[in-house]
Amino acid sequence: MSFIHDDFMLQSDTAKKLYHSFAKDMPIIDYHCHLVPKMIADDYRFSSITELMLGGDHYKWAAMRSFGIDEKYITGDGGDFEKFEAFASALPYCIGNPLYHWTHLELKRYFNIDKTLCKESAKEIYDEANKLLALPEYSAKNLIARSNVEFLCTTDDPADTLEYHKQIAASGFKTKVLPTFRPDKAINIHKDTFLPYMKMLGVRSLDELKAYMAERLDFFHENGCRVSDHGLDYIPYESGNAAAAFKKALKGKKISKKEIDAYATDMLLFFGKEYAARGWCMQIHVGAQRNNNTAMFEVLGPDTGYDTIGDCAEVVAPLARIMDTLEYADALPKTILYSLNSKDNPALATLCNAFQKAPYRSRIQLGSGWWFNDQKEGMIAQLKAFANTGVLGNFVGMLTDSRSFVSYPRHEYFRRILCNLIGQWVEDGEYPCDEEMLGNIIRGICYENAKSYFEL
Amino acid sequence: MSFIHDDFMLQSDTAKKLYHSFAKDMPIIDYHCHLVPKMIADDYRFSSITELMLGGDHYKWAAMRSFGIDEKYITGDGGDFEKFEAFASALPYCIGNPLYHWTHLELKRYFNIDKTLCKESAKEIYDEANKLLALPEYSAKNLIARSNVEFLCTTDDPADTLEYHKQIAASGFKTKVLPTFRPDKAINIHKDTFLPYMKMLGVRSLDELKAYMAERLDFFHENGCRVSDHGLDYIPYESGNAAAAFKKALKGKKISKKEIDAYATDMLLFFGKEYAARGWCMQIHVGAQRNNNTAMFEVLGPDTGYDTIGDCAEVVAPLARIMDTLEYADALPKTILYSLNSKDNPALATLCNAFQKAPYRSRIQLGSGWWFNDQKEGMIAQLKAFANTGVLGNFVGMLTDSRSFVSYPRHEYFRRILCNLIGQWVEDGEYPCDEEMLGNIIRGICYENAKSYFEL
Amino acid sequence: MSFIHDDFMLQSDTAKKLYHSFAKDMPIIDYHCHLVPKMIADDYRFSSITELMLGGDHYKWAAMRSFGIDEKYITGDGGDFEKFEAFASALPYCIGNPLYHWTHLELKRYFNIDKTLCKESAKEIYDEANKLLALPEYSAKNLIARSNVEFLCTTDDPADTLEYHKQIAASGFKTKVLPTFRPDKAINIHKDTFLPYMKMLGVRSLDELKAYMAERLDFFHENGCRVSDHGLDYIPYESGNAAAAFKKALKGKKISKKEIDAYATDMLLFFGKEYAARGWCMQIHVGAQRNNNTAMFEVLGPDTGYDTIGDCAEVVAPLARIMDTLEYADALPKTILYSLNSKDNPALATLCNAFQKAPYRSRIQLGSGWWFNDQKEGMIAQLKAFANTGVLGNFVGMLTDSRSFVSYPRHEYFRRILCNLIGQWVEDGEYPCDEEMLGNIIRGICYENAKSYFEL
Repeated sequence: MSFIHDDFMLQSDTAKKLYHSFAKDMPIIDYHCHLVPKMIADDYRFSSITELMLGGDHYKWAAMRSFGIDEKYITGDGGDFEKFEAFASALPYCIGNPLYHWTHLELKRYFNIDKTLCKESAKEIYDEANKLLALPEYSAKNLIARSNVEFLCTTDDPADTLEYHKQIAASGFKTKVLPTFRPDKAINIHKDTFLPYMKMLGVRSLDELKAYMAERLDFFHENGCRVSDHGLDYIPYESGNAAAAFKKALKGKKISKKEIDAYATDMLLFFGKEYAARGWCMQIHVGAQRNNNTAMFEVLGPDTGYDTIGDCAEVVAPLARIMDTLEYADALPKTILYSLNSKDNPALATLCNAFQKAPYRSRIQLGSGWWFNDQKEGMIAQLKAFANTGVLGNFVGMLTDSRSFVSYPRHEYFRRILCNLIGQWVEDGEYPCDEEMLGNIIRGICYENAKSYFEL
Repeated sequence: MSFIHDDFMLQSDTAKKLYHSFAKDMPIIDYHCHLVPKMIADDYRFSSITELMLGGDHYKWAAMRSFGIDEKYITGDGGDFEKFEAFASALPYCIGNPLYHWTHLELKRYFNIDKTLCKESAKEIYDEANKLLALPEYSAKNLIARSNVEFLCTTDDPADTLEYHKQIAASGFKTKVLPTFRPDKAINIHKDTFLPYMKMLGVRSLDELKAYMAERLDFFHENGCRVSDHGLDYIPYESGNAAAAFKKALKGKKISKKEIDAYATDMLLFFGKEYAARGWCMQIHVGAQRNNNTAMFEVLGPDTGYDTIGDCAEVVAPLARIMDTLEYADALPKTILYSLNSKDNPALATLCNAFQKAPYRSRIQLGSGWWFNDQKEGMIAQLKAFANTGVLGNFVGMLTDSRSFVSYPRHEYFRRILCNLIGQWVEDGEYPCDEEMLGNIIRGICYENAKSYFEL
Repeated sequence: MSFIHDDFMLQSDTAKKLYHSFAKDMPIIDYHCHLVPKMIADDYRFSSITELMLGGDHYKWAAMRSFGIDEKYITGDGGDFEKFEAFASALPYCIGNPLYHWTHLELKRYFNIDKTLCKESAKEIYDEANKLLALPEYSAKNLIARSNVEFLCTTDDPADTLEYHKQIAASGFKTKVLPTFRPDKAINIHKDTFLPYMKMLGVRSLDELKAYMAERLDFFHENGCRVSDHGLDYIPYESGNAAAAFKKALKGKKISKKEIDAYATDMLLFFGKEYAARGWCMQIHVGAQRNNNTAMFEVLGPDTGYDTIGDCAEVVAPLARIMDTLEYADALPKTILYSLNSKDNPALATLCNAFQKAPYRSRIQLGSGWWFNDQKEGMIAQLKAFANTGVLGNFVGMLTDSRSFVSYPRHEYFRRILCNLIGQWVEDGEYPCDEEMLGNIIRGICYENAKSYFEL
């Protein structure tokens, strides 16, 4: 039996039944990813499996570094095979790391390769995969299409022209490729990126900035956007004169922590209201501590494997204030809360409860196990936290959050873990063996809930 | 086989044996609940299963809101059947939520209903339950009596006359209904409730307040009280002039965070000493973040499903100082520590160890999985945290913390989970299959430990 | 079948196979313990099993206190048998506590006793064990030797003469007994121990202190030391004039929190650089909250069972800054990060990733479940945290951290838990059943990785 077989990760008969009957064939709605729209528009072709599988995947880079592989064979000028072989030699030691599973799912689903990857099998697998990659079926669009993706949402700056999204739409590509509105650079007033960004936008006051953003929100909306995203190191909640802070920052003056937070609070409230008015969903990602290794940052820049889970002391208290303020103004949008630190899961799950409202089914949701948490343990922890204090049957399910064109098996991975968990509950007599209802729940979490929640 | 069967939640032969031999028939000591004493004294009759099961149970309200049910059918003026049906339609989607189990245990234990509750079965179950509810066996007292409750402790303000407790005692009701001393309003100097409360008590200085409280402690003691309770948003530990802070607050002046904390610290130390002198147990509940949704608070008030788990940064450090100060004065009472945030469990469990003292068996205890944690995962986490670093055989076990007259199956739920956990340890060879000792441990945790610990 | 049998803690066939084939016979490298070197040098003889098993083991003391045993029979002047019997009477109630397992492993491995320990069996076991203890095979050195310990690292003050280490080395004792450099007293400028320590060292400026320490580092290096250890209540990261703070403290003046932290930061960076220059490993232990019970501290002093897990709010943020500063100066040594609060595990595991570097295999490691976490749950949590985001095949494995000469079965306990976890993964199809690779991984974690990592 090959390592990736039909019942991979499914430990009980009920789990197998649930997966094969209700989960396996559902289309994918990948409502949060980091694919490059231009690559889709251009129907990009990959030169080798190294580019495809290792090209932008900092999870794999981190594992290779831990294994002691020289940076030359990770992000450096090593040859494609040498890089692939280096990864292959590290992989068997990554026992218990989802990379072991993701990689073999990728090899099986896209290349029908059954061999497990290690130093010894690297050459054979490399050659076989590269031969297939040369075929037209392995273009960017075809990789997406064969993964049964109905919708995908990229991550885009408000200033983006969305030209590639338009091109893709015009091309008749069956998968809907929609933008996500991510205005981090407009909120991070304390970062080096703020001043150049404001200059680029040409805005000179907070009112102008908001007017500009409102216009971009309309433009994104016209282009199918229904989701926004915010990446926050911590949750601010501070009162103060945001317009004055903006003016000060625009003059290049140093602003205080209180001013930074008052400005960020004001902007979050502004965006929240705008999203609510348009029926969008607001995603809030909190708890990453970025760019920890300055020496490597200077060489490789951001998003290269040097971020960590942060241990920001308080998340729920300020987040509750932000949400309460919006709700009191009847302007709280659909919201998904993600923390990179799984210790926050239970508290965030209960925070969702405090802002539910008819007729939405779980208007506020605890987001899928994110980034470092998208492994088996992390997914189970998120599912249990959601279920223990909420209505799991409403959950909008998995997303890839990935830069890779072969990351869709992470949806399969999630579905198998979901079916295994629920299957175990059924076998343990913790939930009735009612196939119709179980089918509703599984199909809902895998596909249908996301479709209705995001109103795509 | 019905969903709630004899071996519900019991996955091994040893688990079944332990539950049926040692746990099932133990009386209940519900040392912490929120039943309304007047309803017991009046032997209240319930008009419908909606009132009985949904009347004050904000767990169920929260689930209904998450499912998108209009507030009219939750706390509004919807009809009783419509409300019950609305709950029934949400319930099957609450997979993994203890509500699914609690509700079916309630239907089985009080109404002998085997059908699972869903939209389709709602009418039949509603009618059948209501027919039974009309019988005298379904009065408040009879619901308690049939649940085999030996003692129950309500939650009472120090100013309470305890007239209903006296009435109940005088009525010869077999279950002892005892008060719990909960002086939160006297400690929360920063809340709007403080000034009116002090006016109501008629005290004009801290000394007068303490004298008043000492007298009430005696009064409660005479009426059988042996337990106190403190609900704290966070643990204060601050020095300062508490009497001056009191004076200032009484004049309606704004007081500083430092003054608030110094006052609260002083009062906690005062109460701790008083409890120790009387041989009482002090319960400390920490980590709730209350009334997060102002819009709904204005409509429904507190305790209606809008509280969350808080993520107060530091709990153990100040708590250790409070306990150390009391212990140094030889005035640390028996204490049970509960945090609503289960991430605090391991640290709190070790804090207990630092203040154990002969001849008490676990004078300081890590409290039962509380509120959002009284689900399977939360109970197991608490049991393991207690066991890993303490003497689990001393644990005083479960409480309902509930406003519902049909919440006693939560003790059954706990006992099943306890027996399943210990049964698994035995089957895995992690503890010897010594029935006599296992019986001691199980009976202890279910009933005997609480009886001797609280000296009821 | 006796309680401790060949397959204790091993629940699957694969787990059994892995343990017996690859783990069981590996030598022990106990790279962090608190054995007293003089006792080894003197080949100490124990007067009774009470002294041997209960003499310095505050885990056991804490359990006895929780059980309500009078201090007289714990650390007081009670008789040896009375103490042993008191412990025996508490033990069966410690279900789920690793003490139950450790104790029976100790009785089985060192005395071949199969009976479980309880009040009733206490006398027989006490007598049998004491009879054996009188034999030469039960001297300190022989207890170590029969445990198959290849290396052990004690914990030593920089001022230590290492005379006993030299004596042990000269004696031809087969186990290498190496010192660990632990300069806590030189860093804790805010503690009462600082001034007397500086006087004892005779240093009058920060430069003199650093020169002294550099010399001691060389001396320790010559004596085989390759590991340092730091116990930190919290992680400081502050800039400021450390030399001035030192001067001020030396004059007995009160120094501010900022000065304390600036000094500690400077010293950590100093030591880090020195370790890196010598190829040493730096261990950082964080998260203990010590000496919580002042009343008992005055009687018994430190390390007597009154410490707890701390809930220091932020660990990862300042630790990242310390490590980043060192790495930027190309002076980050091999580092093992331990937190006593297991909630920090996932964040620390990802922090390791941010500072990996070729050619080291996991230069930075998440340390073994430490102190209160060296129970089954804690070990599994640490292994999973390591595995989920790192390369578990690189892990350097277990240590005892113990003052006891019979604590080596904790390595066995860890190995069984490790094999059981990995065996389950294999049986669940989460990792291929590739015996050669599994053997590499298990042998690596049990022994080989530590040997190459520490360069002993």
